Amino acid sequence: MNRHEIAATFKQIQDEICLALENADGKAKFQEDLWKREEGGGGRTRVLQEGNVIEKGGVNFSAVEGKLPENIAKALNLPVAHFFATGVSIVQHPVSPEVPIIHMNIRYFEIAEDAGFENKIDSWFGGGIDLTPHYVEEDQAKYFHQALKNVCDGYKSDAYDRFKKWADDYFYNKHRKETRGIGGVFYDRIKESPEETFAFTCALGRAFAPIYCHLIDLNKDKPYSEKEKNWQLIRRGRYVEFNLVYDKGTKFGLDTDGRIESILMSLPLHASWPYNPQFEKGSREHQTLKKLVKGVDWV
Amino acid sequence: MNRHEIAATFKQIQDEICLALENADGKAKFQEDLWKREEGGGGRTRVLQEGNVIEKGGVNFSAVEGKLPENIAKALNLPVAHFFATGVSIVQHPVSPEVPIIHMNIRYFEIAEDAGFENKIDSWFGGGIDLTPHYVEEDQAKYFHQALKNVCDGYKSDAYDRFKKWADDYFYNKHRKETRGIGGVFYDRIKESPEETFAFTCALGRAFAPIYCHLIDLNKDKPYSEKEKNWQLIRRGRYVEFNLVYDKGTKFGLDTDGRIESILMSLPLHASWPYNPQFEKGSREHQTLKKLVKGVDWV
Repeated sequence: MNRHEIAATFKQIQDEICLALENADGKAKFQEDLWKREEGGGGRTRVLQEGNVIEKGGVNFSAVEGKLPENIAKALNLPVAHFFATGVSIVQHPVSPEVPIIHMNIRYFEIAEDAGFENKIDSWFGGGIDLTPHYVEEDQAKYFHQALKNVCDGYKSDAYDRFKKWADDYFYNKHRKETRGIGGVFYDRIKESPEETFAFTCALGRAFAPIYCHLIDLNKDKPYSEKEKNWQLIRRGRYVEFNLVYDKGTKFGLDTDGRIESILMSLPLHASWPYNPQFEKGSREHQTLKKLVKGVDWV
Repeated sequence: MNRHEIAATFKQIQDEICLALENADGKAKFQEDLWKREEGGGGRTRVLQEGNVIEKGGVNFSAVEGKLPENIAKALNLPVAHFFATGVSIVQHPVSPEVPIIHMNIRYFEIAEDAGFENKIDSWFGGGIDLTPHYVEEDQAKYFHQALKNVCDGYKSDAYDRFKKWADDYFYNKHRKETRGIGGVFYDRIKESPEETFAFTCALGRAFAPIYCHLIDLNKDKPYSEKEKNWQLIRRGRYVEFNLVYDKGTKFGLDTDGRIESILMSLPLHASWPYNPQFEKGSREHQTLKKLVKGVDWV
């Protein structure tokens, strides 16, 4: 299992997910853009817009390499070396406010002394899935976390607890004192047992489509009105805040001079920032806000 | 001229500007929110929404003080001391894509060894105005820069050139290789000749309303269609990117645990991120993109 094989498997996972999402949407098709990075590597960006179910969604694959820029090496606490990074990144913004926003990312990172990657210094896997329902429904939150726990349990007995807490801490809009959604799992720089961790990372990637398609099926035909659409636009605004202020993948992309339209595919087609919106006590919006906190035990 | 007098003058400038903007809008009135900061000081946030001319606009005054948090002291290259910061911050997002977005900020900062500010360590002024037309019109860009130059010329003969370049460098979306708009003037940490610099800072603040009201008058009755509205939403998306990724005032506000709704009043009511939008060569959109570069001599 070398970096090329890992990238090839990730690419295959991208294919599988695109197929599943196109089926679930039933109308729109992914638009594919191939791009190359001057310094080395490139990517396969796929974005679907204005579908039946998905308003804007990206399923991006990339495998880039080159010399690690000094500021990133410093920020990541790494030597200035040659790096190889490959991953699949997904964000789906649905049309209906009853369907949740979802994010998934799986990645592999390797650094070496030389551009031929003969003298490897280090390598690791990372990944995560998190769900941002516009309205938190307890049974669906439970289903989502249980599905992730099932994948984690096949890896290590303490993985779900560790990675669930990691997600709570990571997907957090500190300035709002608000989690992005109901969390999920997140892990980074896992260096131990690479074969098992690769298998787990792939299993997580392959769990994405069935989980999200199930959530689509449950919610896509529910009626909604202007009120729910407005709330959706506000929640998407919070999503933009997280991605531009805190998200490490976005920051890495911007700092390594990545392809902007691929990096920012995570931003929604429409978002809104009304000044200081207020919600009636007991309303669905108010109920949801109360649940956007760390440490909820969903399973 | 002490810090209280400076704050009082800034407050008066806030009043004058709100009055002028309400007159120009002709429909909406500013909603005022007074807030206090636990550690010391507070503010007077004023936001106008869904007016005839302004879709969302804030004119905020604040005067806060307390102990400088360690991370900010480090970032600003300052000792951990007591600080006092007062300013007026403005962003106006108009309804019509033919009316430009505008930003203005004037500020005063003081640090002292003690909470009573008896042993002053340092103090300085900062400020800036910059214009973000959805469509760049050369004659209006020229008018805007000439008006700023006139204010600068009353201060120092080299002020416009210095501060114009500073604005070009500051209001820049590095990841897009694109200026936010047509720039304007920007300056920070000006410690020399405090009396004159205060007078200049007030003059800049007082130049805001006549300049923007003139630009409103020129443009507000121009017809526009869906196409121009869509482009406006995209430009506003870029505005959000700048404010969340680069803007130092936003960062300072988030880092000092400021009032979020006041800090983020700068974000538009609606914004949009379509994937990889393309514009026909020679179109108004394409022409505008070509002008969003540093170093244009407008006067």
